[in-house]
Amino acid sequence: MVITLLSDFGDVYPASMKGVIFGINPDANIVDISHSIPRHNIRTGAFVLMTCAKYFPTSTVHIAVVDPGVGTKRRPIAVRAHSPGGGIHFFISPDNGLLIPAARSIGKFEVYEITNRDLFRKIPSHTFHGRDIFAPVGAYISMGMGIEEVGAEIFDFIDLDFGTGIKTEETFLGKVIFIDPFGNIVTNISSDIIDFKYGDILEIEGIKIPFLNSYGFCKEGEPLALIGSQGYLEIAVNQGNASRFFNKKIDDEIIVIGINKYHVPNSKQVFYTINT
Amino acid sequence: MVITLLSDFGDVYPASMKGVIFGINPDANIVDISHSIPRHNIRTGAFVLMTCAKYFPTSTVHIAVVDPGVGTKRRPIAVRAHSPGGGIHFFISPDNGLLIPAARSIGKFEVYEITNRDLFRKIPSHTFHGRDIFAPVGAYISMGMGIEEVGAEIFDFIDLDFGTGIKTEETFLGKVIFIDPFGNIVTNISSDIIDFKYGDILEIEGIKIPFLNSYGFCKEGEPLALIGSQGYLEIAVNQGNASRFFNKKIDDEIIVIGINKYHVPNSKQVFYTINT
Amino acid sequence: MVITLLSDFGDVYPASMKGVIFGINPDANIVDISHSIPRHNIRTGAFVLMTCAKYFPTSTVHIAVVDPGVGTKRRPIAVRAHSPGGGIHFFISPDNGLLIPAARSIGKFEVYEITNRDLFRKIPSHTFHGRDIFAPVGAYISMGMGIEEVGAEIFDFIDLDFGTGIKTEETFLGKVIFIDPFGNIVTNISSDIIDFKYGDILEIEGIKIPFLNSYGFCKEGEPLALIGSQGYLEIAVNQGNASRFFNKKIDDEIIVIGINKYHVPNSKQVFYTINT
Repeated sequence: MVITLLSDFGDVYPASMKGVIFGINPDANIVDISHSIPRHNIRTGAFVLMTCAKYFPTSTVHIAVVDPGVGTKRRPIAVRAHSPGGGIHFFISPDNGLLIPAARSIGKFEVYEITNRDLFRKIPSHTFHGRDIFAPVGAYISMGMGIEEVGAEIFDFIDLDFGTGIKTEETFLGKVIFIDPFGNIVTNISSDIIDFKYGDILEIEGIKIPFLNSYGFCKEGEPLALIGSQGYLEIAVNQGNASRFFNKKIDDEIIVIGINKYHVPNSKQVFYTINT
Repeated sequence: MVITLLSDFGDVYPASMKGVIFGINPDANIVDISHSIPRHNIRTGAFVLMTCAKYFPTSTVHIAVVDPGVGTKRRPIAVRAHSPGGGIHFFISPDNGLLIPAARSIGKFEVYEITNRDLFRKIPSHTFHGRDIFAPVGAYISMGMGIEEVGAEIFDFIDLDFGTGIKTEETFLGKVIFIDPFGNIVTNISSDIIDFKYGDILEIEGIKIPFLNSYGFCKEGEPLALIGSQGYLEIAVNQGNASRFFNKKIDDEIIVIGINKYHVPNSKQVFYTINT
Repeated sequence: MVITLLSDFGDVYPASMKGVIFGINPDANIVDISHSIPRHNIRTGAFVLMTCAKYFPTSTVHIAVVDPGVGTKRRPIAVRAHSPGGGIHFFISPDNGLLIPAARSIGKFEVYEITNRDLFRKIPSHTFHGRDIFAPVGAYISMGMGIEEVGAEIFDFIDLDFGTGIKTEETFLGKVIFIDPFGNIVTNISSDIIDFKYGDILEIEGIKIPFLNSYGFCKEGEPLALIGSQGYLEIAVNQGNASRFFNKKIDDEIIVIGINKYHVPNSKQVFYTINT
């Protein structure tokens, strides 16, 4: 069974969680999604988990810990999410919204408060619930323990939603929800509401950029828009850093205007430059 | 069987060690504890290994390589440590003190010098014993080979000790033994000799800070003291960087004075601020 | 079966590839070689893969993605390489030279273009072939699928060669092909053409340095030359950074002159200092 880990721990601390997991489930396949989430940044952690979780096989247990409230009264929760195709994903995290977008990306889900102390490490610390609570609970679930064993179902969990871009005629108003490791700007404007085609011209911050299929279709250093691998409108610079180019960071607003239908004849993908 | 790796290699080099391990033990579960130990910093490596090793299951083999003397006459060693509960941990490293605090944290231990060249890769390099000596020896032990096969038991191994804080009335004199990835200051003052309670006021470097159970019980940006997840007195700043706040780095002395018994009524954990 | 991953993805993206792999091969042992290859730097990626691949056991599948041309017409390829001892390694990458030096380091190899879309994820993205093409193809091959299933054999693949140092009397003319995480300068001057012995004096950039067996045989901060763990002439500074010391970066030329045969009596390895 696969167990994924996501945290803002950086280095060192994830290893203790893995030790605890292997002590319970020696056959776990543990995958690090990221331990470099910006410290205490629940929204970025939630976005990253949302965009990765669905690529894992059914029965995967995702343990996510971005937890500014560790040791306070915030609740630990466990979630079971059902994909339309019948797959199941489990999520374990503090009740601060971190896992909700990921669970919703799978499908319908139920939330349980983790209260069964028999599942914790003996004398859990106040400051490292990742190791003492989340890791063992996740490991037991990966062994087949029913999620109902963790505690009662709850309905007042903390929600988190990235919103969705708003379309008005040819103008889209959205937000930056992620800057990826390359500096690409991922917006919350979903591919579902976009009708741009290859070669259309958009305007962002007064700069005209083409809508293309991938980075390599414009010149090095030139900006472009595309549907990113997460399924959202993404602003990039070929072999460059769009976040710096457009001076955009997480949660900034972004306005995208479709100014020119400029379809390439026969939808052929040709090398594109804004100057042709 | 679990094999852990710890080094100051950064990137790339650990992968070759893993290739060698899988060539000998295809069923190994390999866990990276850290490859970002500050270069050649044996003390930090020893601390990290000590605080992680005990969370792994019995029979885990820990391979640790922080090795400024690679290729010189320093000896490679293998250690078997016995926990009071009957568990066994193995450690492989150069003889420079790196693994001793971790072995001692498990329990009694025996040290063997690795001299059996049949266990090495053919024609070992002079500069990468992690790949050519430590990885294969660790892999063979994880397959069940008796530790006595590596060479003779020795008693003149290099020791390493973090010392322990000294208590004089209400003053504790200790040292900084680790700065964690969040900037939290971990001291060598063990929870065993501390009798602070929730809400007590301590003084460090002329600054008054509360002793609390976790970071989130004081305001963002305020300093606090707590028992960290490693079992030592830790100085932190809620959502901030205590190392910068107090200008402390590894091996610095630290003096902690208990100035005020200020117990919260009924030991209730309430949100705390130094200004109330 | 072992599957290795190498990329310039940094963080986050490799996890999706692992999810896809475990969905196809739940028993894969996945090893990260590096995800910190300098962005779009095919030569560095190729060197790292070349120096790591051969340490993995037979039947390992290496998936390497440094892919500035993702989504354009560049081809995906799969390679089967045969070691003289009968072992087999598989490589999956874009057709940009990335995997060729590694395949050649194993032995003879055949190259196939990946065209069988049945092996891809449904509706592959234009920007993340690592997840949608390379990961599933690699996973199927690790399950025993014949490489011929991916598509037809090709012979016009893009080659990449690090060249080899040229020796003229006692002068070697080479190039820097890698700066390792410690700042050590790895050249393309192979150990095969070198006849220096322990204690010989070389001259590089007008600076005299000893040829030694390992870093710890000269004083801290002093430069030295040695045969590095990859089998090439390497320039280092004991506990220092040679790249900064000699101001050398990847692809720079480097001239090494053997100026003095200065063998240590009886080939004994003694501590060395340039001033004795």
